Amino acid sequence: MIGVIGAGTCDETTYDQARQVGRGIAEMGATLVCGGLGGVMQGACQGAHEAGGQAVGILPGPDKSQANAYVTLPVVTDMGHARNILVVRSSDILVAIHGGYGTLSEISIGLKLAKPIVGLNTWPDMEGIVYVSTPAAALESVQSLLTKADCKGSRLSS
Amino acid sequence: MIGVIGAGTCDETTYDQARQVGRGIAEMGATLVCGGLGGVMQGACQGAHEAGGQAVGILPGPDKSQANAYVTLPVVTDMGHARNILVVRSSDILVAIHGGYGTLSEISIGLKLAKPIVGLNTWPDMEGIVYVSTPAAALESVQSLLTKADCKGSRLSS
Amino acid sequence: MIGVIGAGTCDETTYDQARQVGRGIAEMGATLVCGGLGGVMQGACQGAHEAGGQAVGILPGPDKSQANAYVTLPVVTDMGHARNILVVRSSDILVAIHGGYGTLSEISIGLKLAKPIVGLNTWPDMEGIVYVSTPAAALESVQSLLTKADCKGSRLSS
Amino acid sequence: MIGVIGAGTCDETTYDQARQVGRGIAEMGATLVCGGLGGVMQGACQGAHEAGGQAVGILPGPDKSQANAYVTLPVVTDMGHARNILVVRSSDILVAIHGGYGTLSEISIGLKLAKPIVGLNTWPDMEGIVYVSTPAAALESVQSLLTKADCKGSRLSS
Repeated sequence: MIGVIGAGTCDETTYDQARQVGRGIAEMGATLVCGGLGGVMQGACQGAHEAGGQAVGILPGPDKSQANAYVTLPVVTDMGHARNILVVRSSDILVAIHGGYGTLSEISIGLKLAKPIVGLNTWPDMEGIVYVSTPAAALESVQSLLTKADCKGSRLSS
Repeated sequence: MIGVIGAGTCDETTYDQARQVGRGIAEMGATLVCGGLGGVMQGACQGAHEAGGQAVGILPGPDKSQANAYVTLPVVTDMGHARNILVVRSSDILVAIHGGYGTLSEISIGLKLAKPIVGLNTWPDMEGIVYVSTPAAALESVQSLLTKADCKGSRLSS
Repeated sequence: MIGVIGAGTCDETTYDQARQVGRGIAEMGATLVCGGLGGVMQGACQGAHEAGGQAVGILPGPDKSQANAYVTLPVVTDMGHARNILVVRSSDILVAIHGGYGTLSEISIGLKLAKPIVGLNTWPDMEGIVYVSTPAAALESVQSLLTKADCKGSRLSS
Repeated sequence: MIGVIGAGTCDETTYDQARQVGRGIAEMGATLVCGGLGGVMQGACQGAHEAGGQAVGILPGPDKSQANAYVTLPVVTDMGHARNILVVRSSDILVAIHGGYGTLSEISIGLKLAKPIVGLNTWPDMEGIVYVSTPAAALESVQSLLTKADCKGSRLSS
C-alpha cells in the first residue's frame, strides 16, 4: 500500500503530477492510499483509476459523500485531521506532493514512524525525505524502496 | 461495502457461519469490511478470499501484523476499540454474527447511525435488527437491503 | 475520575437524577467525566458545578461551542461517537443513567474493559452492571467501589 | 486552556524552560494541557503543579499508567499519535518548546486550525509562529494573546 499525501486543492500542474504518480502506483500492482478528498488526493486517485488500480480514501467526514469520484474504497472515519495518522500508518511508503500544513503533519508522523517518504515539490529540507523533481523519479524511488529488504513486513513486496 | 462484526474468538460452528457469509458477500460483488482480527472476522475474510473477493480489515493495533491471513486490504488505525466506529461508518449494511461486548458496541453505534443490521445468533431483542437464523437467510436479507431504495447513497447499489 | 453516561436529551426527572449524581460525585471530591453535551451530561455537570466540583466534557465536535454551560474542562476531540471510548477509558467508575444507543455503546466498551458500572434506570439485564434505583443508591455504590481494593490503580482512591 | 507541546525526552535546560512555562500558565489562572508523558510535557506539568495549578494530560496509551507524576487530570485515549490532534484542538493557545517530529505534527495541525502558537527554541521559520527565546517572553506572548480580542470564544479570557 502506497500513500500519496498532498493538499485538498492544488493547481493543474500539481494535479497532473499526482495523477502520474497514482497511475504509476497502480501499474506497479500496488494499492493507493490517500485522504480521499480533492486536489492531490483526487489526482492520484484518478491516475490509479485510469490504470485499473485501486484507490483507498480514508475520509475525515461522517460519511462517504466527500470522497472524490475516483475513490474505489472509501473508509469513513468521522475523525477530521486525526485521520491523517491512519493514512500514514496504513501506508508502507509515502509520496508527498506539494502540500500544506495537513501534509506537513503527515510527513512528521511518517518520519516519527520511520516510514520511507518520497518528496515531490513538497516541504523542503526534512532529513529522511528522498527528494525528487518529477513523477517518474518519484515512481522510481518507490519501486526501489519496494524491492529493498528494509520494506519487509510489507504485503506488497511478498 | 458490507460489514461483518463479531468476536475475535469463536467456536467452529460460528466460524463456519462467518465464512459462508463472507463468501456470499464476495459473490454478490460487494467488498467485505471488518475489524481484521481472528474469530468471526477471520471466518468472514476467509470466505471472501475463497470467492475471490476483497476483505478490508480496519485494525486496532499500530501495524498490520495482527491482521488475519485473509485480509486483502489492511487499514491500520492504532486506535483500539475506537476503530469499531470506523467499521460501522464504512459499512453500508452490517451483519452481526454471535459476538460479545465489542460487537454490542458496534451494533449500538450502527443503530444510532440508522445503518441496516442483519443479526445471526447475536445479541437478542434489539429493535432495528433483522434477525435471521442461517447464513443463507443473512445473505438474502443483505441482498434485499442492497436492492432497496433506502440503500441510496451506496456505491454498491449503483 | 467518575464517568456519567446517558443521552443528550432527557426528561426532567432523568435530568434531576443526573444532577443529584453529579453533585454527589463532586461532594466526594472526585472529578466528573462525561461527553459534555446536553441531557444527562448537562444534568451531571450542573450538579458537579453546584457542589463546586469539576466537570470534564469530552466533546465530539471540532470546537468547544457545543459544551454545556457547566463543563469546566472541555476536551475537544472532533471524533464524533469515537469519543465515547475516551469517556469510558478516562473513567475509573461509570454511572449509566437512562440512555439510548450511544450509552449502550459506552456500557459495552466499559464491560469489555472491565470497568465497574453502576446503572440507574438504564439498559437492563447486562451482567456486570450494579443496578440501583435512586441517585442516592448510585452514589453509595460509587463510594463503595472507590474504597474497594479492586479500584487500585485509581488516583482517586489513593 | 494553554497547550504545551514538546518531546517526551529532553535535556535539563529544556526541562527547566518547560517548568517555568508551566508555572507561569498556572499563575495566570489558566489550565495546562499537554500529552501527559515525560520530557517537556512533564516539565510543564511540574511547573503547573508547583504553582497549584491544573495539568491535563491527554495520553496516547490504553490507561493512565504512563502519565507523569504531575498530571492532575489524565484523559485516556488509546489513540497513539492521533491524540496529538486532541491536544491541539483542546488548547486556545499553544506553546511549542524544542521538540521533534511529534511536536512538528502538532505545530502543523495548530497552524492549519489557525491556533496562536508561541515557539521557544522549536522548529524554525514557520510562518504563523511567534518566536521567543526565553520562558518569560513566551509567557508574555501568551498573556498578550489571552487579552486580545481574537481570543474570543475562549472560556479563559471571559
